Amino acid sequence: MAKQNITSDRSNAGKRNSQKRFYAYRKVNKKPSVRPPEPEESVRVAFLGGMNEIGKNMTVYEYKSDMFIVDCGLAFPGEELPGVDLVIPDFTYIEKNINKIKGLIITHGHEDHIGGIAYLLKKVNIPIYATKLTIGLIKGKLKEHNLLDSAKLVEIKPHDNITLGSFNIELIHVNHSIPDAVGLAIRCPAGILIHTGDFKIDTTPVDGDMIDLTRFAEYGKKGVLALFQDSTNAERPGYTMSEKTVGESFVNLFRKAGKRRILVATFASNIHRVQQIIDVAQQSKRKVAVLGRSLENLVQVGKELGYLNVPENIMINIDNIKNYEDENLVIITTGSQGEPMSALTKMAFREHRKVVITPNDYVIISATPIPGNEKMVGNVVNELMKQGIEVIYEKMYEVHVSGHACQEELKLMMGIVKPKFFIPVHGEQKHLQKHSLLAQSMGYSKDNIYVGTIGDHIEISKNGIKYIDSVPSGEVYVDGIGVGDVGNIVLNDRKRLSQDGLIIVVATINTQTGMIESGPDVVSRGFVYVRENEDLMNSVRSMALKIIDETYDKRYHDWNSVKVKLRDDITKLMYEKTKRSPMVLPVLMEI
Amino acid sequence: MAKQNITSDRSNAGKRNSQKRFYAYRKVNKKPSVRPPEPEESVRVAFLGGMNEIGKNMTVYEYKSDMFIVDCGLAFPGEELPGVDLVIPDFTYIEKNINKIKGLIITHGHEDHIGGIAYLLKKVNIPIYATKLTIGLIKGKLKEHNLLDSAKLVEIKPHDNITLGSFNIELIHVNHSIPDAVGLAIRCPAGILIHTGDFKIDTTPVDGDMIDLTRFAEYGKKGVLALFQDSTNAERPGYTMSEKTVGESFVNLFRKAGKRRILVATFASNIHRVQQIIDVAQQSKRKVAVLGRSLENLVQVGKELGYLNVPENIMINIDNIKNYEDENLVIITTGSQGEPMSALTKMAFREHRKVVITPNDYVIISATPIPGNEKMVGNVVNELMKQGIEVIYEKMYEVHVSGHACQEELKLMMGIVKPKFFIPVHGEQKHLQKHSLLAQSMGYSKDNIYVGTIGDHIEISKNGIKYIDSVPSGEVYVDGIGVGDVGNIVLNDRKRLSQDGLIIVVATINTQTGMIESGPDVVSRGFVYVRENEDLMNSVRSMALKIIDETYDKRYHDWNSVKVKLRDDITKLMYEKTKRSPMVLPVLMEI
Repeated sequence: MAKQNITSDRSNAGKRNSQKRFYAYRKVNKKPSVRPPEPEESVRVAFLGGMNEIGKNMTVYEYKSDMFIVDCGLAFPGEELPGVDLVIPDFTYIEKNINKIKGLIITHGHEDHIGGIAYLLKKVNIPIYATKLTIGLIKGKLKEHNLLDSAKLVEIKPHDNITLGSFNIELIHVNHSIPDAVGLAIRCPAGILIHTGDFKIDTTPVDGDMIDLTRFAEYGKKGVLALFQDSTNAERPGYTMSEKTVGESFVNLFRKAGKRRILVATFASNIHRVQQIIDVAQQSKRKVAVLGRSLENLVQVGKELGYLNVPENIMINIDNIKNYEDENLVIITTGSQGEPMSALTKMAFREHRKVVITPNDYVIISATPIPGNEKMVGNVVNELMKQGIEVIYEKMYEVHVSGHACQEELKLMMGIVKPKFFIPVHGEQKHLQKHSLLAQSMGYSKDNIYVGTIGDHIEISKNGIKYIDSVPSGEVYVDGIGVGDVGNIVLNDRKRLSQDGLIIVVATINTQTGMIESGPDVVSRGFVYVRENEDLMNSVRSMALKIIDETYDKRYHDWNSVKVKLRDDITKLMYEKTKRSPMVLPVLMEI
Repeated sequence: MAKQNITSDRSNAGKRNSQKRFYAYRKVNKKPSVRPPEPEESVRVAFLGGMNEIGKNMTVYEYKSDMFIVDCGLAFPGEELPGVDLVIPDFTYIEKNINKIKGLIITHGHEDHIGGIAYLLKKVNIPIYATKLTIGLIKGKLKEHNLLDSAKLVEIKPHDNITLGSFNIELIHVNHSIPDAVGLAIRCPAGILIHTGDFKIDTTPVDGDMIDLTRFAEYGKKGVLALFQDSTNAERPGYTMSEKTVGESFVNLFRKAGKRRILVATFASNIHRVQQIIDVAQQSKRKVAVLGRSLENLVQVGKELGYLNVPENIMINIDNIKNYEDENLVIITTGSQGEPMSALTKMAFREHRKVVITPNDYVIISATPIPGNEKMVGNVVNELMKQGIEVIYEKMYEVHVSGHACQEELKLMMGIVKPKFFIPVHGEQKHLQKHSLLAQSMGYSKDNIYVGTIGDHIEISKNGIKYIDSVPSGEVYVDGIGVGDVGNIVLNDRKRLSQDGLIIVVATINTQTGMIESGPDVVSRGFVYVRENEDLMNSVRSMALKIIDETYDKRYHDWNSVKVKLRDDITKLMYEKTKRSPMVLPVLMEI
């Protein structure tokens, strides 16, 4: 794709149509001129997410009474959050400062950068600035939440300058595992800040444009106050391989597949990967079908917006694969992380309605397991192999490359941006620490590096970085349509229930006579197989009967002490008999 | 340690005291002479565990009416088995054939090889043959189960020959991450089988004895019918590093620690690792304290049986660490897998009663995360780093080596044993398949390789490997003191409860009048925070009232249809209102 730098303030952009440039300039750049930095000036930054944690990236930049936000992502819950669908940032700080917030800039279209937007817009309807593909992906999300009509979306592109109050922000093209990713050069009277966003240095990217290192270097020459850099791969030595290497592997693997049908599982957001699969399919005269809702969406958006180059007649509907020979088919599918409900997992366990796998399939898992998913991916690989299918995965070939810069790239970026202060972002503590060590190896003193945590509110000036205070931040759980209504009490109950289940003891008591009119009935779930444990259940019933008889006093109606005794004594009895601790729930009804 | 080959039948053992040899021979070898193999003879093998899965290793070898078992391990449950403590093999096949079973041979003292013994002995009290350290570790387990007095334990050592019916089994010393590990040469009229057990080739092992490759080679020369080989590391190229390299890393790291206190987390069964830590502590004039019950046990057993060489006065009780300066201390601790209840995790989260960590600690995690534990280990590393502690983990240094042979070692073993048939064991499907490919790269045809699964019952003769049938096998869950009483119904309930919790609807109905005498009461756990969702709870109550009123017919007392309607309608209502699916449990009481 050729770039249109029409709104660029780059000195070498003069050859482009100045009329057009002027127009675009007016559209987004209200106050292009930025005063030179003064020593006493300072800029503030609040980290609402993605700092000392992975996911839900969200950063607020502040100069006097002007604020703007970079990214608004989500995180996927681990097993420590049973039943939770998504985790989003706490928006309290945004709501409190809504009068100062000038807008939200999105660096790229991954869930951990855009997944929280719909929830934010339900609280504050601020303008959103993002590149074309990113806007396309955001629109998909807003549609699901019925927010599309009210949202204020502004399409921008690399070299554009956005003026938000006292801030002037230039977008700089970076390489990543999704097209149209940008880093930011944030200019304000306190100086220049570089926010890399997620990036890698790909000298042979699939979409043709190498990261704009020149622009980063130009800022480095001007003098950068602070660099906020992606720490995801700070633990990995060397360079991240080019996306092109994956395409080369595909060529080899497609040849090895021979007359077999090929299934490729990959991340649903990786347009470059999908493009390469389509390219190799075209060369090897195979039709391409896409499986999995998120991938279908991506292909749709990618085609519409011109980010996917799809030859005519190559794509077929998954329902029509039966009309083609195995050797003429490639199926691109979701499920590269072994997700239980994904298309690949369903196929592996022969539960997919549309695709039945056979030993004549050849499966390529074009991804690396995200920490925590190793076992799920292994299960899917095992299940496919049991059915005689050859599976190519992880490191056996170059079937996946990361979208994030490794140590040498991180150091290179530091080396050309030459910031006064260095702030590693987007990573857990171990990534931030390693990133800090990298900076130290480049000659930075610890005093010029800030390793922070979510909620930190800092002030940066020529004189140093100062911690000011902690702003409201944290994890807001989305479960179904509920946002924030699942808290620790509910989660602890879920965890407890998942370990040993529960026992419910119900009795109806006549408050006048003090007699038990019905029950006690004992119901259990997730504890023991009741039909084989009638004695155990009877022992609960007898104990409950005795406790109610002895403890309930019709004069005082002290239900609570009866309940407490039921709970405590039955819990103890169960532990003695089974060494398990089911939740005991007494329900006493009165008539 | 010098080896005592006194019960050996090795040709070069003649120089040893023949009287002593004869005695020991009589003790374990009742029928030492084995007929030369005849082509029509066959041997059978049943895989009760550790085949097409990781853990709970258990194999039965059978010749006519003689059977013996190799290993009886457990597996640790993953998150797909909530609340389950352990998984053991199904012993049905053993119980059915108890008259044929001559004994159980244990290859080494790891949980996945000994952890099922106590549960097996509760069903059948067969003699158990194992080396000294392994017996020591088994005794610890039997004691917990009050089985020590009744168990028949026979101590054996490398070169010993055990005669079990028509079988004569020689023990062969192998290297592994625990001392006293053996492989087996199993001789019977059908031929020689080599069962490697878990092994690696360590040319500089900490305990002085390299794996007895000579003996394996001698069997190879004689002619081996089948090789059963450990597949754990079949995916890893190259050689496994020597345990000694870890010791060398410790020397460097202890120096780097300087005046800081050192904490080393490692597997509780790795005596070699503990020995090396003690050695380096001795050199650097530090006292050693041990933390975590399983490690304390290991040190106890290792010292008693002479497997740990502990200099005088070096060990101190953890309660006395306050009497020493940080620079004079090493604490060896459990928790290298980030287990939530382990000592290291408790320390990291400042919940340990006895050890309080400070930035003057230096933590070495001397282990690699087992697949599935990556996130837990990461959490502990992050937590320690947040408190300013330097943490050395995984691959940053050689702080851990595997106990299992990598590809080159596996091929070397195949190359010297030269079996007619090759059977990869101890691994998931992907490991077995990769191991099979390795054998194929050595020239084996697919027909001479058997990739099996748990329950497979096969017959091996010179003519080939034949699948006979499938014997009872599978996973038996141990939860508290219950063995096998938690099944799919209970587990599914636990999983369901963990996702969206439950709603209990209770009402007392007068069967004569058909009137509701009390309730309906609505109780929920793990669903929503009730105090903030009273409207939702009221909507359940109203619906329940309406359903009972409309559905209950006092003429028929059809409780069931009322319950079904309550469950279905309330489930639907909750999904509409919250997009969650709590378990709905109606309890109807009658008076």
